[in-house]
Amino acid sequence: MPLETLHDLLVHELRDLHSAEQQLLDALPLLAEAANSDELRTLFTKHLDETRGQLDRLAQIFQALGESPEGKTCKGMQGLIQEAREAIQEDADPEVLDAALIVAAQKVEHYEIAGYGSVRTFAQQLGYADATRLLEQTLREETATDEKLNRAAEKRVNQRAAAAAEAPV
Amino acid sequence: MPLETLHDLLVHELRDLHSAEQQLLDALPLLAEAANSDELRTLFTKHLDETRGQLDRLAQIFQALGESPEGKTCKGMQGLIQEAREAIQEDADPEVLDAALIVAAQKVEHYEIAGYGSVRTFAQQLGYADATRLLEQTLREETATDEKLNRAAEKRVNQRAAAAAEAPV
Repeated sequence: MPLETLHDLLVHELRDLHSAEQQLLDALPLLAEAANSDELRTLFTKHLDETRGQLDRLAQIFQALGESPEGKTCKGMQGLIQEAREAIQEDADPEVLDAALIVAAQKVEHYEIAGYGSVRTFAQQLGYADATRLLEQTLREETATDEKLNRAAEKRVNQRAAAAAEAPV
Repeated sequence: MPLETLHDLLVHELRDLHSAEQQLLDALPLLAEAANSDELRTLFTKHLDETRGQLDRLAQIFQALGESPEGKTCKGMQGLIQEAREAIQEDADPEVLDAALIVAAQKVEHYEIAGYGSVRTFAQQLGYADATRLLEQTLREETATDEKLNRAAEKRVNQRAAAAAEAPV
């Protein structure tokens, strides 16, 4: 598909995100299963539900644009998920594995934040009001998930600091 | 390398970022060459200089930790760069290609923001003050580059809106 217009690029990037979300449908249960802490497992499971909703929004947009969601494999997400799978297969301490899973998930979220931020701007520029609103909703969810992962990572830092302070000198 | 401790995970992720930055040394000149606007070409060229500085900082950290930077290929960045290469090879209108290059570059920056954010937190948690400071510097540069790319994307939106307002009705 040649990229002659901004509409073409919007569709191209929406297909990329559609492929990315579909890959995540398969990958998130693996992350949830590998997680050591209940908090992290719940976070991945909740994000799996959100991912289904985000795919529904993409389906609505493709339908409104009269375009097919198929035709692109997101290579970026393939690489990110491969990294996550490698982390799961490492011979890792459970707590260290959780930290590694947070890193992998934040890379995934940041991919989506960059992707959805771009398509939201393109949809806005093209005057596609409904698509802009739907993409803005997903962008807010992805940003909120990244913030939850940040808090999970920081909590680990604080817990460690507290444990160190209580340790016998 | 087993991930038994947070130090192991820090080294693992620093190697990932080292591989990512080295891949960018090769990719950024291609992005600069493909860019249509002078502003975007300058932005990519300037970020190439920053990337060299960021690799120097990583080298300092590996030396201080007594660890080797080699041993990992960043699959995430491989996928992101492959996407950027595919965008360059598309049969694209020059202005649309610039928008596509901005998307590709923002995905790269977000990968690095997630990666450096994590290693900065781990270094802090481990009490590695010099590494924390160096990683914080790089994180600030990556965030600033992403903001510049945001501004370049928004400027295109405003220019289009202005052109549309001036067009005969």
